[in-house]
Amino acid sequence: MTTIQDIADKLGISKGTVSKALNNAPDISETLQKQVLETAVELGYTRLRRYKKPTRRLCVIVQKDNIEYLEPHHFAYDIIMGFRQMAEPAGYEVEIIPLDVKFQREITYDIFMLQNDFAGSFILGFSLGEPWMKEFSSSRTPAVLYDNHMIGNPNTAYVGIDNNEGMELAVGYLKKLGHQKIGYLSSALGSHIMQVRHRAFFQAMHSHGLKADSSYAGCSYYLSECMEKHLPRLLKEGMTAVICCQDTFASAAITQCQQMGYQVPRDISIVGFDDIPLAPYTSPPLTTVRQDRTELGKSGFYALSSLLNGVSIGTMLLHAELMARQSTAPVRSEEQDRRMAKE
Amino acid sequence: MTTIQDIADKLGISKGTVSKALNNAPDISETLQKQVLETAVELGYTRLRRYKKPTRRLCVIVQKDNIEYLEPHHFAYDIIMGFRQMAEPAGYEVEIIPLDVKFQREITYDIFMLQNDFAGSFILGFSLGEPWMKEFSSSRTPAVLYDNHMIGNPNTAYVGIDNNEGMELAVGYLKKLGHQKIGYLSSALGSHIMQVRHRAFFQAMHSHGLKADSSYAGCSYYLSECMEKHLPRLLKEGMTAVICCQDTFASAAITQCQQMGYQVPRDISIVGFDDIPLAPYTSPPLTTVRQDRTELGKSGFYALSSLLNGVSIGTMLLHAELMARQSTAPVRSEEQDRRMAKE
Repeated sequence: MTTIQDIADKLGISKGTVSKALNNAPDISETLQKQVLETAVELGYTRLRRYKKPTRRLCVIVQKDNIEYLEPHHFAYDIIMGFRQMAEPAGYEVEIIPLDVKFQREITYDIFMLQNDFAGSFILGFSLGEPWMKEFSSSRTPAVLYDNHMIGNPNTAYVGIDNNEGMELAVGYLKKLGHQKIGYLSSALGSHIMQVRHRAFFQAMHSHGLKADSSYAGCSYYLSECMEKHLPRLLKEGMTAVICCQDTFASAAITQCQQMGYQVPRDISIVGFDDIPLAPYTSPPLTTVRQDRTELGKSGFYALSSLLNGVSIGTMLLHAELMARQSTAPVRSEEQDRRMAKE
Repeated sequence: MTTIQDIADKLGISKGTVSKALNNAPDISETLQKQVLETAVELGYTRLRRYKKPTRRLCVIVQKDNIEYLEPHHFAYDIIMGFRQMAEPAGYEVEIIPLDVKFQREITYDIFMLQNDFAGSFILGFSLGEPWMKEFSSSRTPAVLYDNHMIGNPNTAYVGIDNNEGMELAVGYLKKLGHQKIGYLSSALGSHIMQVRHRAFFQAMHSHGLKADSSYAGCSYYLSECMEKHLPRLLKEGMTAVICCQDTFASAAITQCQQMGYQVPRDISIVGFDDIPLAPYTSPPLTTVRQDRTELGKSGFYALSSLLNGVSIGTMLLHAELMARQSTAPVRSEEQDRRMAKE
């Protein structure tokens, strides 16, 4: 168990100086304080030793550039609620910390956690390029990452839905409706989850014995490019159904199809991903793969409390569920096509 | 909430008859009892409603043809201990049920669970062909499957280690030691976990930029075929390291290499999987990917209690860990080869 004395010995300074640095005393240089904090993290010092009881403070860290979290109709809101619903009755205090890239550049994750007395964190909305993402490959303070997967660090866990299962359900459902030519529209593959879903699409098509080469998918950072370039191309190539990486894309795709003179679902079926609160209110209502946000939050707490209790969970995935609504329909038969051509 | 009355109504029989069937009364025909039990399962009836409090009985089901479980040096023993260590303090009774294929043919999983008043199960040692495996795709009583993954049934969860991570660690470690030509030895791909590890091997080789086509792997149902056919072939093709699907294979491979005149690890490095109690006692001691068996058991309980509490966990994977022992060494340099050739 690391003590203040250990830190002092390692740095060749007095216990008093270490204590000052740990407690943000004003009469200590920034450089020395940084050195003390880094050594404290390196040696595995935590404040819980000071109070002789484990710290019961957790935080939910939200990348506020990437994710909305304060309003009940936003995706992260229910996740945070689910987390609190489990953590608070278990005796933990939960603090919500919105931060951006700049903040991550100024302080390391471990030092931030140590200074604020947090025993562990639940991390929402981080894309692959964020500064702290590199740190999570070797960080020491338990962190549960929503929709991000770190290999090889026993102090982190990945929580999300089973996207392979979700894609399997979506493709299987469309196949049952008679669809054979199914396309995929995705935003850029700059986040873990977009990469996973992209791979899952091809895997699910393959496992259902349906053809899908790279031309069956259209990916772009810009929604407009997806809608104006890739979607028309997929329609031209004879796709009768399109799965979208997330509901916002699916909602835009419905509108775009309609503007191009296609009826949804008569001419083309559209499937989304996530079941955001908006999904039942698109026109027609969107068939989508549901992520249960409250359960995701609860699982985040389950995983974090496991890490805190020394059960080194790496991955925890919730079952996906298909919400069949009206944006999908049986594929049009050739006879129907002929009849329509006559009219 | 389903009552005895509901079952009676559905079948057009009296409540008394239903009750008799549920309680194994002797004066009721086998056919009728079967019908009552199947209807009870179909309608979601559980005894917990009868007592007006949830049943607190769980079982660990062990496929005794495939897995040893009673002796402390066997793999399943620690898993069961870990499960009990969590379940019993949480107020659950845990019963261990050893069974075989014949037993599964005689009674369905759901009826077995209902008749014995078990709220949920932890399933060990099932291969893909077992009769109950089909049932788990739509069973209604919570089941946590160790090393088996059911897609699409919210009442089952999959618990194991992250085999992708484990293979990533094994290949990464060998690459650091200078190995480029790495082979893989596996038993037949008739179990979920053997399929997962086989895929993970190629994925890890690929992600480390190493070549690996299908000739780099040797798979056989018979250990002897692996040792006498595939292992010599891999050695002949110039592999400097071989990863084995499990420790028993790795242990046999060490012996076989030695009998063929190869020194382990000087001429060939061998890596196992699982870290069974035997692993530190092979000669040389085996480098292997560790599954923490006690933690696996604990995770089994975590997942099961989540299912029982309505958090629909699908997958829960523990971090893998590489145990570097003496069956691996840096690859021999060309200079060393030349020097040895001169001697």
